[in-house]
Amino acid sequence: MGNTFGQLFRITTFGESHGGGVGVVVDGCPPQLPLCEADIQKELDRRRPGQSKITTPRRETDTCEILSGVFQGQTLGTPIAIMVRNKDTRPQDYSEMATTYRPSHADATYDAKFGFRNWQGGGRSSARETIGRVAAGAIAKKILHHTANVEIIGYVKRIHTLEAIVDVNTVTMAAVESNIVRSPDPEFAEKAIDLIDNIRRQGDSLGGVVECVARNVPPGLGNPVFDKLEAELAKAVMSLPACKGFEIGSGFAGVLLTGSEHNDEFYPEGDRVRTRTNYSGGIQGGIANGENIILRAAFKPTATIRKEQNTVTRDKQPTVLAAKGRHDPCVVPRAVPMVEAMVALVLCDRLLCHQGQCQTIAAPN
Amino acid sequence: MGNTFGQLFRITTFGESHGGGVGVVVDGCPPQLPLCEADIQKELDRRRPGQSKITTPRRETDTCEILSGVFQGQTLGTPIAIMVRNKDTRPQDYSEMATTYRPSHADATYDAKFGFRNWQGGGRSSARETIGRVAAGAIAKKILHHTANVEIIGYVKRIHTLEAIVDVNTVTMAAVESNIVRSPDPEFAEKAIDLIDNIRRQGDSLGGVVECVARNVPPGLGNPVFDKLEAELAKAVMSLPACKGFEIGSGFAGVLLTGSEHNDEFYPEGDRVRTRTNYSGGIQGGIANGENIILRAAFKPTATIRKEQNTVTRDKQPTVLAAKGRHDPCVVPRAVPMVEAMVALVLCDRLLCHQGQCQTIAAPN
Amino acid sequence: MGNTFGQLFRITTFGESHGGGVGVVVDGCPPQLPLCEADIQKELDRRRPGQSKITTPRRETDTCEILSGVFQGQTLGTPIAIMVRNKDTRPQDYSEMATTYRPSHADATYDAKFGFRNWQGGGRSSARETIGRVAAGAIAKKILHHTANVEIIGYVKRIHTLEAIVDVNTVTMAAVESNIVRSPDPEFAEKAIDLIDNIRRQGDSLGGVVECVARNVPPGLGNPVFDKLEAELAKAVMSLPACKGFEIGSGFAGVLLTGSEHNDEFYPEGDRVRTRTNYSGGIQGGIANGENIILRAAFKPTATIRKEQNTVTRDKQPTVLAAKGRHDPCVVPRAVPMVEAMVALVLCDRLLCHQGQCQTIAAPN
Amino acid sequence: MGNTFGQLFRITTFGESHGGGVGVVVDGCPPQLPLCEADIQKELDRRRPGQSKITTPRRETDTCEILSGVFQGQTLGTPIAIMVRNKDTRPQDYSEMATTYRPSHADATYDAKFGFRNWQGGGRSSARETIGRVAAGAIAKKILHHTANVEIIGYVKRIHTLEAIVDVNTVTMAAVESNIVRSPDPEFAEKAIDLIDNIRRQGDSLGGVVECVARNVPPGLGNPVFDKLEAELAKAVMSLPACKGFEIGSGFAGVLLTGSEHNDEFYPEGDRVRTRTNYSGGIQGGIANGENIILRAAFKPTATIRKEQNTVTRDKQPTVLAAKGRHDPCVVPRAVPMVEAMVALVLCDRLLCHQGQCQTIAAPN
Repeated sequence: MGNTFGQLFRITTFGESHGGGVGVVVDGCPPQLPLCEADIQKELDRRRPGQSKITTPRRETDTCEILSGVFQGQTLGTPIAIMVRNKDTRPQDYSEMATTYRPSHADATYDAKFGFRNWQGGGRSSARETIGRVAAGAIAKKILHHTANVEIIGYVKRIHTLEAIVDVNTVTMAAVESNIVRSPDPEFAEKAIDLIDNIRRQGDSLGGVVECVARNVPPGLGNPVFDKLEAELAKAVMSLPACKGFEIGSGFAGVLLTGSEHNDEFYPEGDRVRTRTNYSGGIQGGIANGENIILRAAFKPTATIRKEQNTVTRDKQPTVLAAKGRHDPCVVPRAVPMVEAMVALVLCDRLLCHQGQCQTIAAPN
Repeated sequence: MGNTFGQLFRITTFGESHGGGVGVVVDGCPPQLPLCEADIQKELDRRRPGQSKITTPRRETDTCEILSGVFQGQTLGTPIAIMVRNKDTRPQDYSEMATTYRPSHADATYDAKFGFRNWQGGGRSSARETIGRVAAGAIAKKILHHTANVEIIGYVKRIHTLEAIVDVNTVTMAAVESNIVRSPDPEFAEKAIDLIDNIRRQGDSLGGVVECVARNVPPGLGNPVFDKLEAELAKAVMSLPACKGFEIGSGFAGVLLTGSEHNDEFYPEGDRVRTRTNYSGGIQGGIANGENIILRAAFKPTATIRKEQNTVTRDKQPTVLAAKGRHDPCVVPRAVPMVEAMVALVLCDRLLCHQGQCQTIAAPN
Repeated sequence: MGNTFGQLFRITTFGESHGGGVGVVVDGCPPQLPLCEADIQKELDRRRPGQSKITTPRRETDTCEILSGVFQGQTLGTPIAIMVRNKDTRPQDYSEMATTYRPSHADATYDAKFGFRNWQGGGRSSARETIGRVAAGAIAKKILHHTANVEIIGYVKRIHTLEAIVDVNTVTMAAVESNIVRSPDPEFAEKAIDLIDNIRRQGDSLGGVVECVARNVPPGLGNPVFDKLEAELAKAVMSLPACKGFEIGSGFAGVLLTGSEHNDEFYPEGDRVRTRTNYSGGIQGGIANGENIILRAAFKPTATIRKEQNTVTRDKQPTVLAAKGRHDPCVVPRAVPMVEAMVALVLCDRLLCHQGQCQTIAAPN
Repeated sequence: MGNTFGQLFRITTFGESHGGGVGVVVDGCPPQLPLCEADIQKELDRRRPGQSKITTPRRETDTCEILSGVFQGQTLGTPIAIMVRNKDTRPQDYSEMATTYRPSHADATYDAKFGFRNWQGGGRSSARETIGRVAAGAIAKKILHHTANVEIIGYVKRIHTLEAIVDVNTVTMAAVESNIVRSPDPEFAEKAIDLIDNIRRQGDSLGGVVECVARNVPPGLGNPVFDKLEAELAKAVMSLPACKGFEIGSGFAGVLLTGSEHNDEFYPEGDRVRTRTNYSGGIQGGIANGENIILRAAFKPTATIRKEQNTVTRDKQPTVLAAKGRHDPCVVPRAVPMVEAMVALVLCDRLLCHQGQCQTIAAPN
């Protein structure tokens, strides 16, 4: 269970890091959206391994195939199945994992739950699983852009102790993609790349923070109560591998302000109601207010490292592990397109649901 | 939409702060669980307004009635409907809200979404909505305790700039309930109460952090991918009013460590696989590992304050608002039972789902 | 589980035949729909017991209270909770049921599933549970009428061996309600009333068939594959107590025709594509084609009868039962508003979902 | 939407009759179930086209590939993706369908819903979509057999005016598979084959009835209210292409009996409570009682026929159509494994859900 996401725009991912392949089925996509493999491939290319010296050296082109749901260059409204074959697998690198648990990895818990696991690579807990999310996110982005000109831009805000300076109002995708660490602050980027490269050589790893802004989100998206927009976003982002924290707007720093400091005063601007500040992060009471949606996600340092660590075997004997296999010294740059994808999936689903509940009665008049 | 939570243990809440009442329907509760109104009332009493000088003076006993699903002191396995009538309502206090938007409140976004709202109190965005959650959470806690001796204890970890010192292994519910700010650190409690009382007199408000520990959670609960246990918890907690941030285990501070520092080394302890540290917060790869589940939630300062603020009216004219009505100067102490309830709801649902998927084949053998 | 129905227009019912009351929570209702208790009461009055000599003599006014979700005569878009108190209960009539299973009733299976049941009345399996459905159906009907002028008319088509003659194109609600058996064929009605009254005196019971037509359903509602419109309708109607069969359009009689006889030939009529015949019953490939939706539901004779029957006790001893309590000699006339409600719930949910998936991209242009 | 089925054992199908392929993702499968492609292939072979002179001559081996979720011959508990490539496609046979609507087919309604469709073959409305269902059903059957020795056997009960005589207690899969029409009554089978072969030569088509029995279903499976077992079965079966009617137990014929005739009297048999008759069809109050579950499904004659028919074009001009392409003169024999698959999917999902709700509290004791 747990492999389906969304209410009307609903995706189901499948696949392990080693095996026939990985992919996604997207159900509920609006019909007549122009769509081709290149739309999806460009996002997969941002996610794929081997793209730079600070990512895992595993070589996968991650070439996608659309199996269904598209005809003559347009979506049919029926399920869009997208598949990527696994190619550069080296199961032999993982033979030790069959019996030895990697600390802070999912080996032990998968065994606890299922009594059994695919020990070749990370199985289902591998970041490879996110291929399906990023592919589906590419479609969601297209719908959001097409319908309301929504822009979703993620970037690396922090690596270990380094923090980037970014203006959420003006940041561009081009600036993000201008360097391999995916941060629009060039000074930060240079230092962060050095830091990651250095930790890689030590056989250790680093974590960091991804920040993401969604601009032009139509006011009204989201729901009261359990499916508040910030709650859906939190779940979406916290479901990414290695994510340990989530903030919307002011986040944890917001507790350092008083109510009169934190409240976002309203003012009129033409047809719109705007706010002077944006501590709310674009959401009030679970519903988008039209300001920038701003969120941050904390990613822990990669669990699989070459350094020696104490651990146990499947039969509960103490042992020592220095992991083989190919791993990212820092997942954060590759997490950027993943975070964007999850944000897009939430917003697209909310767009369709809002249209369903709140535009049906008014629409025909 | 968005008023239902859970997959097998599924709750639906209803009601506005002013109107006939609020409540919850719990579907999927296991049969033959001993249950009476007192089980629920004791949790509602921790949540209710008017319980101390640092909460809203609105006087509600929040007396609950079980309408269905219980017979001769035991659950039937059919929906348990629980209702609490609204009593001490003063709609006249809110007449200004009919036309004026409270900054950082849900007034403007509800209008944007629904074109219409109940302006008496907070309507559906009121903390009063959480009565249903806390009532259902009381049932979930009972199931978890009955089945696996799970203990869920929340407490105030931070108010504004003050931080409490708490040992997650030994903290008790009695210690939490020993003071009105709900923190087991007595020194912190005293200072925090003063701080809140002081801000109340200024007509302003404060925020803070609730920490929550779940002990004795059976290994194996939770799912890979979208419904990772930390993702479900994040959604659950972030769906509470005023919540702006969520952390599991090391959270945002985890990015300051390297992988070799952050990894939780395994060691054997009798039948169990344990970890030396618990940066993971009891969850690895979305699945509980049997260690303490530890999470934190950031709550912003209450939006409704007596201090004058700039805002706009429904027809987009600038105006000034100094809110009337009765409000909490700091929601954090009352948020403690709400966070516990949401954690209990997630864990109970995961318990039933795990039983369904992973115990069916083995069970009959 | 199993007490929630619908995807966007989603209802959850609660309550047993004896106990605090029964009701429903409607989530996802479009906002700004005019709604008051009278809208709901008029449908509940068609369903309630004691309305004529051929229904159960239990006296319940079934007066409903709207607890939430409506403000100043309009829906808020938040959950609408509706409650009906149980009043004329006689638990003592059922003391025998505590230990004795009624044949073809749910007593034995509830015990098998839950190990426990409310033996006062039918508990959750009582027709009283349908109050929530009929209340929610009244709202769904209003939305359908308001949005697309959809008319849903059910009537008794058959009682035991008697069959009514009805023209689905012209039948009116007034004609249906003109007699206590709820059939627009007056000759049939007279004979059927006699038949039911006669069986009642014998302490036995009868079954029958309800037919239902939905006119003006917008083409395009419904989905391919699992959620085909006819499949959703089948589930909806088959979930009513005592329902044993379902047909759409030609139904079982359709197998007696060849393809060339059964196919509904298309022809143009102004802007519309029409069909000459309607063996399809208004649905092709799971999607409404704009013709009348026509369905039939078979209801078995009431299980609870005064006549003596062989059965067993809870501890599996043979015994004999002649049921006390107050029961319908034939549920079919009261099933008419239930069937209409279920059809309305399906169509309303499909309307909102269709709007969500298929009108989002086109709508803003 | 509408391409996902089930609550805990949840399947999502994808694919059109012409295009990259068709398939299914099964989420929620219990771990450690022995599974290989041969388990699935044997059911797909019963469904595939070209298997005899009375099915469509389209030649597809329908060879399946398991892409994920199985490792070393056992299920992992993660999603099982299964794919079948389309091979023997002849899109040119369908060029006329691009502009001309086949009577009683889904061409017109897909256009009404989506504004667009894949006119090569039936697109998503093709019986080819059921490959995913039958593949998933093979897994469900294995779980049911493994856990509770459940047997599910479907067969052709009626073709046009011919009816087979079958004993539900003793019918075997071997008897069903002993002839190409899939009926255990050899006399009926011979006549039915002639009838179908004859209609095929006339360019016309026939319908019929599939009956299905499920033996050894554990008492307690199923739910009260909306998800009654008969309601879930009705939806499952009515979602198959061409299905127009559904009956459980006595079905429509049950209305010809009185309550005292129709009630299934209970008697004790060892540890079990049994019923003397089985008009209930193994289900009372939505919950299995342990007797044989017996259901029937009516399939209309195939809509696509070679005979000339009046119809309209996409731009609403009258025209005449004599369909090309390769079609079944009668889908009923191939519908047998489809019905079995849908019954297995419902029962397996109910098994897991029952385990989740009703075995959690008791299990650890």
